Amino acid sequence: MKYFLVVALFLAMPIQAQQQDQKQIQEIYEEALSNGKGYTWLNYLSNQIGARLSGSIQAEKAVSYTKSILDSLGLDKVWLQPVKVPKWVRGIPEFAYLESSAGFTNNVPVRALGGSVATPMGGIKANVIEVRGIEELKALGTTKIQGKIVFFNKPMDPTILNTMDAYAAAVDQRYSGATEASKYGAIGVIVRSLNLRLDDFPHTGAMSYGDTPFEKRIPAAAISTNGAELLSTSLKLNPDIKFFFRQHCKTLPDVDSFNVIGEIKGSTYPDEILVVGAHLDSWDLGDGSHDNGAGSVQSMEVLRLLKATGYTPKRTIRVVLFMNEENGLRGGATYASESRKGNENHIFALESDSGGFTPRGFTFESNQGNFEQLLGWKKLFEPYMVHLFEQGLSGADIGPLKNDNIVLAGLRPDSQRYFDHHHSENDTFQHINKRELELGAAAMASLVYLFDTYGTVASSN
Amino acid sequence: MKYFLVVALFLAMPIQAQQQDQKQIQEIYEEALSNGKGYTWLNYLSNQIGARLSGSIQAEKAVSYTKSILDSLGLDKVWLQPVKVPKWVRGIPEFAYLESSAGFTNNVPVRALGGSVATPMGGIKANVIEVRGIEELKALGTTKIQGKIVFFNKPMDPTILNTMDAYAAAVDQRYSGATEASKYGAIGVIVRSLNLRLDDFPHTGAMSYGDTPFEKRIPAAAISTNGAELLSTSLKLNPDIKFFFRQHCKTLPDVDSFNVIGEIKGSTYPDEILVVGAHLDSWDLGDGSHDNGAGSVQSMEVLRLLKATGYTPKRTIRVVLFMNEENGLRGGATYASESRKGNENHIFALESDSGGFTPRGFTFESNQGNFEQLLGWKKLFEPYMVHLFEQGLSGADIGPLKNDNIVLAGLRPDSQRYFDHHHSENDTFQHINKRELELGAAAMASLVYLFDTYGTVASSN
Repeated sequence: MKYFLVVALFLAMPIQAQQQDQKQIQEIYEEALSNGKGYTWLNYLSNQIGARLSGSIQAEKAVSYTKSILDSLGLDKVWLQPVKVPKWVRGIPEFAYLESSAGFTNNVPVRALGGSVATPMGGIKANVIEVRGIEELKALGTTKIQGKIVFFNKPMDPTILNTMDAYAAAVDQRYSGATEASKYGAIGVIVRSLNLRLDDFPHTGAMSYGDTPFEKRIPAAAISTNGAELLSTSLKLNPDIKFFFRQHCKTLPDVDSFNVIGEIKGSTYPDEILVVGAHLDSWDLGDGSHDNGAGSVQSMEVLRLLKATGYTPKRTIRVVLFMNEENGLRGGATYASESRKGNENHIFALESDSGGFTPRGFTFESNQGNFEQLLGWKKLFEPYMVHLFEQGLSGADIGPLKNDNIVLAGLRPDSQRYFDHHHSENDTFQHINKRELELGAAAMASLVYLFDTYGTVASSN
Repeated sequence: MKYFLVVALFLAMPIQAQQQDQKQIQEIYEEALSNGKGYTWLNYLSNQIGARLSGSIQAEKAVSYTKSILDSLGLDKVWLQPVKVPKWVRGIPEFAYLESSAGFTNNVPVRALGGSVATPMGGIKANVIEVRGIEELKALGTTKIQGKIVFFNKPMDPTILNTMDAYAAAVDQRYSGATEASKYGAIGVIVRSLNLRLDDFPHTGAMSYGDTPFEKRIPAAAISTNGAELLSTSLKLNPDIKFFFRQHCKTLPDVDSFNVIGEIKGSTYPDEILVVGAHLDSWDLGDGSHDNGAGSVQSMEVLRLLKATGYTPKRTIRVVLFMNEENGLRGGATYASESRKGNENHIFALESDSGGFTPRGFTFESNQGNFEQLLGWKKLFEPYMVHLFEQGLSGADIGPLKNDNIVLAGLRPDSQRYFDHHHSENDTFQHINKRELELGAAAMASLVYLFDTYGTVASSN
């Protein structure tokens, strides 16, 4: 059924408009692939600034640098929007080992989960209870868990094609594992890294203690997948094995930071706003090239591409680099609440936060009328190998903008390699392919162009 | 039009058959992603054996190793098919520099093109004439070229989305550059590497002297893209610059080698043969992981996947690892001629020779009736993000099997990164992603399954 509808809608578009759209999209792609700037910008962001966790000096440098890039693009307005952000610091590097018997130890790579409390200065050492997830933890109960370190070892499911879905199915042990384990008297939590490969990189990421009182919070760390396999095998050989880990992370008072914003004012409908954005902060391991330097430079590149191809937007097109997606989402929340205060009318928002890999398509949160309109554009993307147009989650930062009429969209790059890098020391610039990054920016700019040209069903057009 | 046809064909398939196909394909993908063997095999091929140019000891080791793998799969028959192959050796590593004035030199990375003659023992040093391709060379004529080194510096076109097409548009300077330049009195040829990135790896590849008499053959080498940029810029500053290069490569007499073949005999139509294959040889730089260790292990994995999922083929399914695709295509030619001698009936052949990246689809060489049948299968692949079903070239090794009734197909992985690696020291195992490799094998096995189940239009079914 869907296919008939797509063809029908596409054929219904006037030939001349189709040709104009094809031409504009071709020009965007040619400019991106022959003169793209995103890779150079990302090189600076990754290699000169590096990891930029909210509240860090690097995050502030990233704000200044990206503002200077936007200032250089000849936009109509560039500004910083104040955002108060949390500041969590890792401190002295973590240390961990498993002890099969007194004096016989194997070091294993661990990193504190973001937001975790520290261990005591001297670390903790205890017996380990391995579980495959939170349900299994609950089934074990206090007797089996009291006084132990809980080892959450549910791997990502390799048979799920889209690795984002496999992540979603396993991330609860990282996010809520410590809170749940503490209810049964656990003294610490070790979580298998959310990585489909076997390697030596621990992958950090956000965790929450919910409403657990401060004195009941237990430390939580990620262990590399190889480390998890070693620990699991060792436990099978000897359930009495002990695990030691030490971490000195700390939450400091909130600090001032910013969303970085630039816009081209619409020539015809300046009050209708299209947003393209990504989060500028990253975790503090690696340099955050894929998560989410890639999306940040792609979002800036979208506005550059539209200008470089001589396109004059009818509507206001805004790039927003959101601060603090990783451990607070304060940037996204602030942007949406300020926008509501100002009675701004956002008709479309697009986020890139799934890595700088070859774009496969987009997922959309929209009403049916808008979804039918955009399905009519699908064929325009096929020459560029962008095939996926589906209903689905868009992005965390633009989520707070949601209402009945706005169309929210997320770029969907190829997901196979993403979790090799995500939140780990392995998320570095050398793993970015210039053309893949540029193709993502071109796909995004093409979609923004179409929404600018045709508006949404609820908007003017 | 195409869309209506696809939907119509798909809807025309009995529901039960559709469900059986979906189930079998799902089982193939689950087995590939949770228990795939290709990555382990490729690790051995790449890291224990390494580069395997035709005629080398490594090529013979690769024959023995892959035969031992096929022997372990419980196939009905495994054998080696003798192939006489050329033997070209690189000898002492190449050396090159550009000399802006006496004593002021910059070393640049070069590697002899495959099949090139050596320079004199002491190398050659001469003025350089830069051209953007063979047409520009012809326009210059003998006066400008006589006694010089011709520098072919036509880059791959970055605006062509499929990098294979950009390669096809630039490869003539590598393949025929020396022959053409020698007609105008050039004494050597330096060719810009066929690589879309700027980096320091020279990319070798086949070249031919055609019917140029031996004494008129001039040496040809690839220069890295960074080296090409340096040379070009230096020539603009000073056209009198000299270039030196030295290479000691040599063609030895042909030697004995083999295609490696294994098959599962068909239960119903044993005389109808389906081939899945790839070339086992590689160039002598890097370890040939993407070109074409990936295709080799994927082809073996196809048969393992069919067996592991309990599928009993109706037709004979054969894996062929072809020797000598890179510099002679003797394996493909021998396989086809032996097959003709034996009056074998090949109805389908599938080749993987475009890297181990995420599969995007297939290209087909087939008659219209078969193409319409296979378009009806397209929707079965969409859940696996395999979208491209198009007419187009299949593969070099299976090309000699072509006739009016056979369907030839080529796996089309994402092409963006391929030429970062192709034919260079940068084609190594670390650049293989396990899941991407496995998804390619699963897509191939699924297509083989469908051709086995439904046959071709000319065949029984």
